[in-house]
Amino acid sequence: MNNLVKSPSESITVMNELVLPNDTNTLNNLMGGRLLHWMDIVAAITGQKHSGKIVVTASVDSVSFGKCIKLGDVVTLEAKVTRAFNTSMEIHIVVWAENIPSGEKFKSNEAYYTFVSLDRNGTPVKAPELKPETEDEQKKFEGALRRRQLRLILAGKMKPDEATELKALFLPD
Amino acid sequence: MNNLVKSPSESITVMNELVLPNDTNTLNNLMGGRLLHWMDIVAAITGQKHSGKIVVTASVDSVSFGKCIKLGDVVTLEAKVTRAFNTSMEIHIVVWAENIPSGEKFKSNEAYYTFVSLDRNGTPVKAPELKPETEDEQKKFEGALRRRQLRLILAGKMKPDEATELKALFLPD
Amino acid sequence: MNNLVKSPSESITVMNELVLPNDTNTLNNLMGGRLLHWMDIVAAITGQKHSGKIVVTASVDSVSFGKCIKLGDVVTLEAKVTRAFNTSMEIHIVVWAENIPSGEKFKSNEAYYTFVSLDRNGTPVKAPELKPETEDEQKKFEGALRRRQLRLILAGKMKPDEATELKALFLPD
Amino acid sequence: MNNLVKSPSESITVMNELVLPNDTNTLNNLMGGRLLHWMDIVAAITGQKHSGKIVVTASVDSVSFGKCIKLGDVVTLEAKVTRAFNTSMEIHIVVWAENIPSGEKFKSNEAYYTFVSLDRNGTPVKAPELKPETEDEQKKFEGALRRRQLRLILAGKMKPDEATELKALFLPD
Amino acid sequence: MNNLVKSPSESITVMNELVLPNDTNTLNNLMGGRLLHWMDIVAAITGQKHSGKIVVTASVDSVSFGKCIKLGDVVTLEAKVTRAFNTSMEIHIVVWAENIPSGEKFKSNEAYYTFVSLDRNGTPVKAPELKPETEDEQKKFEGALRRRQLRLILAGKMKPDEATELKALFLPD
Amino acid sequence: MNNLVKSPSESITVMNELVLPNDTNTLNNLMGGRLLHWMDIVAAITGQKHSGKIVVTASVDSVSFGKCIKLGDVVTLEAKVTRAFNTSMEIHIVVWAENIPSGEKFKSNEAYYTFVSLDRNGTPVKAPELKPETEDEQKKFEGALRRRQLRLILAGKMKPDEATELKALFLPD
Repeated sequence: MNNLVKSPSESITVMNELVLPNDTNTLNNLMGGRLLHWMDIVAAITGQKHSGKIVVTASVDSVSFGKCIKLGDVVTLEAKVTRAFNTSMEIHIVVWAENIPSGEKFKSNEAYYTFVSLDRNGTPVKAPELKPETEDEQKKFEGALRRRQLRLILAGKMKPDEATELKALFLPD
Repeated sequence: MNNLVKSPSESITVMNELVLPNDTNTLNNLMGGRLLHWMDIVAAITGQKHSGKIVVTASVDSVSFGKCIKLGDVVTLEAKVTRAFNTSMEIHIVVWAENIPSGEKFKSNEAYYTFVSLDRNGTPVKAPELKPETEDEQKKFEGALRRRQLRLILAGKMKPDEATELKALFLPD
Repeated sequence: MNNLVKSPSESITVMNELVLPNDTNTLNNLMGGRLLHWMDIVAAITGQKHSGKIVVTASVDSVSFGKCIKLGDVVTLEAKVTRAFNTSMEIHIVVWAENIPSGEKFKSNEAYYTFVSLDRNGTPVKAPELKPETEDEQKKFEGALRRRQLRLILAGKMKPDEATELKALFLPD
Repeated sequence: MNNLVKSPSESITVMNELVLPNDTNTLNNLMGGRLLHWMDIVAAITGQKHSGKIVVTASVDSVSFGKCIKLGDVVTLEAKVTRAFNTSMEIHIVVWAENIPSGEKFKSNEAYYTFVSLDRNGTPVKAPELKPETEDEQKKFEGALRRRQLRLILAGKMKPDEATELKALFLPD
Repeated sequence: MNNLVKSPSESITVMNELVLPNDTNTLNNLMGGRLLHWMDIVAAITGQKHSGKIVVTASVDSVSFGKCIKLGDVVTLEAKVTRAFNTSMEIHIVVWAENIPSGEKFKSNEAYYTFVSLDRNGTPVKAPELKPETEDEQKKFEGALRRRQLRLILAGKMKPDEATELKALFLPD
Repeated sequence: MNNLVKSPSESITVMNELVLPNDTNTLNNLMGGRLLHWMDIVAAITGQKHSGKIVVTASVDSVSFGKCIKLGDVVTLEAKVTRAFNTSMEIHIVVWAENIPSGEKFKSNEAYYTFVSLDRNGTPVKAPELKPETEDEQKKFEGALRRRQLRLILAGKMKPDEATELKALFLPD
């Protein structure tokens, strides 16, 4: 049932949410934690579709929040697998917000979450490899190595001077 | 009412949560997004206590999840301000999980969230400065500069070769 | 900002939901009312995107539920405007369910909801007309008249013998 | 424990709900999907009381929403079995809304939901027959045949020209 | 609009709730706090119907929980005003639980909550007086004085030796 | 794993909650039932930590609510075991509310909840004894006998003239 290789388009997942009162603070702004929760759900569904297994969140890369999303706005989240590493998958999530009466729509933020696929006993199992198809998918597939090194360093599992891929990040463009 | 300088102990916040069925996946593991949501709430309360203002989440640093937290576990979250930068505050959150019948208790993970304090019109306002007191608080206060540079680089707002503080991270210990 | 004519593809909305414990009965089946609620939300978002206004549910056509959706399944809902009638819009929703570990995926059900677009004072306002593009959209656009007559009869607002369009339904194919 | 014949009064169920912020849109109107959800719950309880079994929703007949119900209103729902058909039961729900400070109270809408009773393995089991007692119960009991034919036609399981009972609906009163 | 005198039957309120997974602990027992929350809601609706005003909870008398209510049970709550004291009303709530497949039904517990009626500015306003009609209503009406003295003593607002009514409680029957 | 004697500080539990829209009535006041629910959760966690077992609520002593807590306020709850009686534990909860922009902070109320500790089959099991350490803990430990007699009388399980401890309550200070 699990193909050995899958493309990102086979598991892409879109989710739309209405910002309800309990999702907001007293200034009627969407709380960041609520958005992180939605991002986790849409990415978990993507990871489940890609792996055909239950998945658990292994890590979240840094996320920055820009313009406030308001009560009543429609939030659209889109999640795509960017690369699989044995039992784990890196998933990219983009978030847009749309205010209906004003017609304003803007990209709110984006993030990378990593998930591990598990069998019914909770043991990690191999996920299908990812075959990028578009140019953007190829670029994110390559960048995944660099982001993985940064995660390992930040988690104290790799020494910075071993992170050969990451050094590109610290050189001016 | 807002003192110009406050210590971390004036706004430290503890939250305990029971892991309920809706917080878990079908393997009875706490979903990562739910935990990110709780971390945001406890940190937002800390930021509100420190600044005496409503706060919004500006960013979340990378978070990694280790051992699974299970249905029925008690999750304890503790949040402390580590440094204030004009209108923003960096807040450190530590998460423990405890399984009552087995007596097992472990540190699940930790993270840094950044918040901006706002007045009633939603305009950023200056937060009180932080005066670290313990050795650990002093260490986190100093590390805050380095983490801030990493955030700016990851958000594309600073060039890596300008990040003088961050370079320490890439030198072997 | 409101164009006078819009195509269905301009407001199509997709929503994915994980079936959580509180959504199910003690046999672990998704409760019908929860699904009706999700269908209303995805259709309301579609209606808001089409009209650029806040919308309220005016009616739901009969819905039948087939095979049970289970705890942990991924539910995918897709909503499209089928026709606009002055201030109201008919919206078609299709629901699929997918069980990840087994790989089973099936169409659960479909329905038509009707919404009215409102201005900020709650007064009904004209919605853009719908211009169907595909063959299926054209067929649903035409059937909308018949369904509308059935709704009016069932609500006691039209006499059955005046329902010229509806009579087609009662003739053998 | 399951009597073969039961009256509607043995399983009539009343539910009162307060309209809370998360149940409303940005105009403070109760969302239709939330009401459909409550209607399903009260009707499911009625079906469980009548059958003494777990029940699942099989279908919902068309529902129209009239006057908006507002934030803070008290919603009263009353559900009664109208007829049993082997393993399924038709249940009628009436909804009232009451605004406390103004004292205004109105009937919001009504609907018919159909449920199937299941044993612990999820297999449909026979429900007790219904014995109507009042004149209104008798009228609804008789109309149930006609509504059932309409459901079968709309679900594509009966040809309109076979629906002998339903033809009465298409003749002027 | 507010009559000066009302009978208990004019505001009696019934609520039925299904015990869902999030309402239970890991032994599948309904958590006491959830039941206290439901009791507050049904009693608040009763208080609103009696007073025609928004109400807030002023106190809860001691409540004891007996036999455990289980996941999937139907909980029925019935609330009735027992006496009005100027701006406050004492409300009696009785709770039953029913397990559908087993057919077991039992009275779970009962309690007295007290509410204060408020105008739109949050200022306490006089509630209509209560006119008991049945023998049981008359008995509860009389006992209300004694319970009120106990509340005042327990809240430190009355000295025990002034509680003339309460002394009856401490004499053997 | 269960020590025979524990001090209150070994299981003290603090919980912080933000008052969200769904927790309030239309005057933006926190509903009493919601607070009773939070008090039950924090006390249940304390009882679980003290006994190392799952616990169920056995009773709640009378609670009075004073000043209204408002939307957006931070509610802090602290729970401590005051005495263990064989399989049951009395737990004291104190509640504070803090309004951030105004800086106002006040003690809202306090209460005693009683819990029973259960093994995995739901059978009551002995809880560790409590050893009070501070003067306040000693005073509450002694008062627990008196409160227990009042509970037994109110539940109809003890005759008032047998309540030797309770009589102290009815003598002027």
